[in-house]
Amino acid sequence: MPTKNLLEKISENIIFGGQQMRFRHKSMALDCEMTFSVYIPTKAKNTKVPVIYWLSGLTCTDENFVIKAGSQKYAQEHGIAIVCPDTSPRGDKIPDDPDASYDFGLGAGFYLNATKKPWVDNYHMYDYLREELPALINKNFQINGNKMSISGHSMGGHGALTIALKNHDLYSSVSAFSPICSPINCPWGKKALSNYIGGNPKDNFEEWAKYDAVELVRKSNALIKNSMPILIDQGDADNFLKEQLKTQLLIDVAQEEKFPMNIRYQEGYDHSYFFIASFIEEHIRFHSKYLND
Amino acid sequence: MPTKNLLEKISENIIFGGQQMRFRHKSMALDCEMTFSVYIPTKAKNTKVPVIYWLSGLTCTDENFVIKAGSQKYAQEHGIAIVCPDTSPRGDKIPDDPDASYDFGLGAGFYLNATKKPWVDNYHMYDYLREELPALINKNFQINGNKMSISGHSMGGHGALTIALKNHDLYSSVSAFSPICSPINCPWGKKALSNYIGGNPKDNFEEWAKYDAVELVRKSNALIKNSMPILIDQGDADNFLKEQLKTQLLIDVAQEEKFPMNIRYQEGYDHSYFFIASFIEEHIRFHSKYLND
Repeated sequence: MPTKNLLEKISENIIFGGQQMRFRHKSMALDCEMTFSVYIPTKAKNTKVPVIYWLSGLTCTDENFVIKAGSQKYAQEHGIAIVCPDTSPRGDKIPDDPDASYDFGLGAGFYLNATKKPWVDNYHMYDYLREELPALINKNFQINGNKMSISGHSMGGHGALTIALKNHDLYSSVSAFSPICSPINCPWGKKALSNYIGGNPKDNFEEWAKYDAVELVRKSNALIKNSMPILIDQGDADNFLKEQLKTQLLIDVAQEEKFPMNIRYQEGYDHSYFFIASFIEEHIRFHSKYLND
Repeated sequence: MPTKNLLEKISENIIFGGQQMRFRHKSMALDCEMTFSVYIPTKAKNTKVPVIYWLSGLTCTDENFVIKAGSQKYAQEHGIAIVCPDTSPRGDKIPDDPDASYDFGLGAGFYLNATKKPWVDNYHMYDYLREELPALINKNFQINGNKMSISGHSMGGHGALTIALKNHDLYSSVSAFSPICSPINCPWGKKALSNYIGGNPKDNFEEWAKYDAVELVRKSNALIKNSMPILIDQGDADNFLKEQLKTQLLIDVAQEEKFPMNIRYQEGYDHSYFFIASFIEEHIRFHSKYLND
């Protein structure tokens, strides 16, 4: 497979002295062409740098965070690379929601491995993020693959939390903005999981629970609890808070299970990137503590 | 005219603690409905705050700077409001470039007063920015109208420089990113001026020179030279530098005329908002020196 790791550069811009780049590549896990963005701080000219993977929310591509969050200043200051994957497989051949709604199919991969037709052939964002993309990144950039953290927004916050909780040995820290805390218990999650992995929260609970941060916290052992620093910010003026995000369920289970995590309500903030921009400096500083220790 | 100053709020988001808002209103100067964005820092709860007007470039609306520049953090820190107007009159009834190209007509008002048909009925961005919009802003927000500065990018950098140079008594300071320094001497400028005000740089020089920063610097008296602090940043990897922006002409005339201005080439930066984001902190600090003195 000679083209396996071939990266085609789509664009490159200097921002805060570092390189903001965008690449296209053929994904094996997703069986389609994918794009991702990566910010490389100038420190990478001299040494391998740690990396944060950023997972975006419903409807986003790899570009939203790059354009709107203002993260590059802090990535440069702390000498950390940031990788932004797309939010689902893409392309004319990729099956989409028959209704083409925003919350399922293209732009809504939910960072899981689908097991049901027609999604099973392409919707493997979990494998893509856990294995294929980091291997590609570590091979092609001056990245220290042993120093990875993960963060995300909304559906991407769900992705960051669930991937990290299942792979505590891979990540130094995890953070989230406005995460979907319990797909089992919200309309977005039920629609996604019933299609991608089938059934419902009762008849297929074991499989659904694999992609539910609340259930993963409930099952976490002492090693996970003590090795996984978690920071979560949630705006209290977020329209999706009560119906879709269910932050309180995560607060409750963390307390029950004595899982130390810092979950903060931020007064007046909504679900937008204006919220992310306001607190991304603190999130990058949080990750830097564990990535640059 | 009961609806003259009526503002319709389109959106409001909290960012860095302040209010990022978007409004629709009926413009008298442009004879159409216009939108603008405004950032109000929390300091405005207690006192009237100074304001920076930001003028965007070709194809932009009032939203590009709001979403991409990351200015709100520094506006909040310095207690300065930022007003972002649209870049031209808008609407189905507004005449546009017959070829619908990006560099003329809608999204390309060039911050002037058109005198030729069919543009003359609506394309009065100069009057809109000099009189109508500040009056509306000062009336509706906690703004100190005696403390105004102006900045912009590309076509908006041209707008900021030319409006400030003709109205040094109105503005405390002016800055620009990648400005079109001499419309008389570049394809974008020639297309715009020949249509909006007619003729060519030879047979209509007096009128063209009113919208050319290089010519305005050439005509500036000592009062203007001593009362108008100017900061300009220009990326040296900007694709438009040589053909369209003509920064060297401005450097040369400033030197000839002994007009003190700080024009800086920034290594490796291009024409994008990634460049603006990298230096907006310095520009807001520059303006703050004169607005908060």
